[in-house]
Amino acid sequence: MRRIIRFNKAPRVISAASVVGKKEKEGPLGACFDLFDPSDKFGKDTFEQAESEMQRLALALAIKRSGLGGAPEAVFSGDLMNQCTSSSYGLMSFGAPYFGLYGACSTAAEGLILGAMSIESGAFETVGCVSSSHNGSAERQFRFPLEYGSQRPPTAQWTATASAAFILGVSEVTGNVERAVRVTEALPGRIVDKGICDQSNMGAAMAPAAANTLATYFALSGREPRDFDMILTGDLGKEGSSICRELLESEGIDMGDVYSDCGVLLYSGSTQDTHCGGSGCGCSAAVTAGYVLERFARGEVSSVLLVGTGALMSPTSVQQGLSIAGVAHLVHLSSD
Amino acid sequence: MRRIIRFNKAPRVISAASVVGKKEKEGPLGACFDLFDPSDKFGKDTFEQAESEMQRLALALAIKRSGLGGAPEAVFSGDLMNQCTSSSYGLMSFGAPYFGLYGACSTAAEGLILGAMSIESGAFETVGCVSSSHNGSAERQFRFPLEYGSQRPPTAQWTATASAAFILGVSEVTGNVERAVRVTEALPGRIVDKGICDQSNMGAAMAPAAANTLATYFALSGREPRDFDMILTGDLGKEGSSICRELLESEGIDMGDVYSDCGVLLYSGSTQDTHCGGSGCGCSAAVTAGYVLERFARGEVSSVLLVGTGALMSPTSVQQGLSIAGVAHLVHLSSD
Repeated sequence: MRRIIRFNKAPRVISAASVVGKKEKEGPLGACFDLFDPSDKFGKDTFEQAESEMQRLALALAIKRSGLGGAPEAVFSGDLMNQCTSSSYGLMSFGAPYFGLYGACSTAAEGLILGAMSIESGAFETVGCVSSSHNGSAERQFRFPLEYGSQRPPTAQWTATASAAFILGVSEVTGNVERAVRVTEALPGRIVDKGICDQSNMGAAMAPAAANTLATYFALSGREPRDFDMILTGDLGKEGSSICRELLESEGIDMGDVYSDCGVLLYSGSTQDTHCGGSGCGCSAAVTAGYVLERFARGEVSSVLLVGTGALMSPTSVQQGLSIAGVAHLVHLSSD
Repeated sequence: MRRIIRFNKAPRVISAASVVGKKEKEGPLGACFDLFDPSDKFGKDTFEQAESEMQRLALALAIKRSGLGGAPEAVFSGDLMNQCTSSSYGLMSFGAPYFGLYGACSTAAEGLILGAMSIESGAFETVGCVSSSHNGSAERQFRFPLEYGSQRPPTAQWTATASAAFILGVSEVTGNVERAVRVTEALPGRIVDKGICDQSNMGAAMAPAAANTLATYFALSGREPRDFDMILTGDLGKEGSSICRELLESEGIDMGDVYSDCGVLLYSGSTQDTHCGGSGCGCSAAVTAGYVLERFARGEVSSVLLVGTGALMSPTSVQQGLSIAGVAHLVHLSSD
């Protein structure tokens, strides 16, 4: 029986930080992000190492802001690169016990759930949850190198050059606890595969997983979408989020105007040539760390659902004819 | 400050199952494994899909043995394939909430730690921890396709065709509790990189991480190697485990004759042409599920340290000149 996880200790988001590339800085949420490099290289020779550096910068800034005076007791991290090297090489210098994750674009939500669980269990008092993606490293690995200049179909999403780090901790740990944002609930997702095979329409492949997790959450909690100030999937893009909305509507759930998608929010679709919007482990991470937490801080929201959505295929599984499986992990963030 | 995690609820290993290929079945531990296919294909067309099928078979058998009557409340799983598709496609049919992990050959230990933590936190009463590797899929992805017939240097290890599943649960859950094996402690590892760049000597690359985790555990716990019935790294192979032993000796820790390595145990080095021994996420998983739990059941051991060791590089990170980073997660298994 699937159950909602309720965190009795309500681990607090002590601090967060976001690092983005040029396009993300120029987008409608640009002002919310902490660090950026207009060259997208962050002083490194390769896109892969730039992505590692973004994780390092994000966690370093989150640690600085946390007032902890050093690394958290453990880190949970993942990214899109083969063998998750952006995370392992990016976070090595912190010397913290390391849990590597693979949840594709759901990684930020997966990390927040596992981080909160580890605090709830008493294993750690502070943990870092980090994730990243980079347009240059992801396009070259999953599709074509940027230099090739490949045309992208209208349903394609734009892999965000973005990273974010969150420091979670038990309530007693240092830091400003006024308007503290807490991880109060979670619903980890099942793998859902509805037979979509089009690698350029990941939103459609992941939408059924998001709808499944949201419908289950509303059924189990007895709540409705309008009980929340904001519900964000991350990242279905324009196409996927409209499919998700329709799937839920067919089950009698009206998502109303509290629902949006991190991939839709990150770019200006009309002027930035990003087609269906953003994607990648860094997209929902940076939108949550930058935009969502800023809205909490301003008192504009006090109860938000983040539904991290991941497409779990690989280039090899697609070449071998398998359809694209998706997963969606729900995290409920609430402020005091 | 790094701390040993002590699981007060002492999550129990309710059941386990192992699935191996031809070479593993013919090795010295062959009789310990539950299922095998002499073709290594498990009825599938590709090595990648065979590996997924091995995970499915392992978890299905572990569920059957658990007496739970259905899937556990969540699964933690990982493998070596890009984007961890052996896990996502292999475990989809169980419909359980899914946490994808990437810990390379340390995945079995990482999964046991996170699974035990999630039970300790109260999030779940039962979880499945699954991992796998396949010689055919791994060699083609990391080195050369088997058909190429590439020569392997003497320090090379042999990626095991193996998968194992563990069902962990709170004590009250059904099943035989006589001589119950429990996850009583854990020490998650830091990432350690000592500058080894040779992809054909992964044991040397991972040995410093294993030595670091073991030395830290002994220092923090006040225990010595001889306090345990068995200490297993997985998988450093012959070369790596001898380096690990030497590194610990230089810190005044004598590993004595309780220490061995899952990769050394899995094959007969002299007759099976496996050079330094086994490796891959499935190696330490299957050796633990098959051999170690069998020794617990026979009453031959009652306190065992498993140190899962993972090399966190990728072919891309190696091509770009980075050295090979390692991690080692310690799990303490004890019987009542």
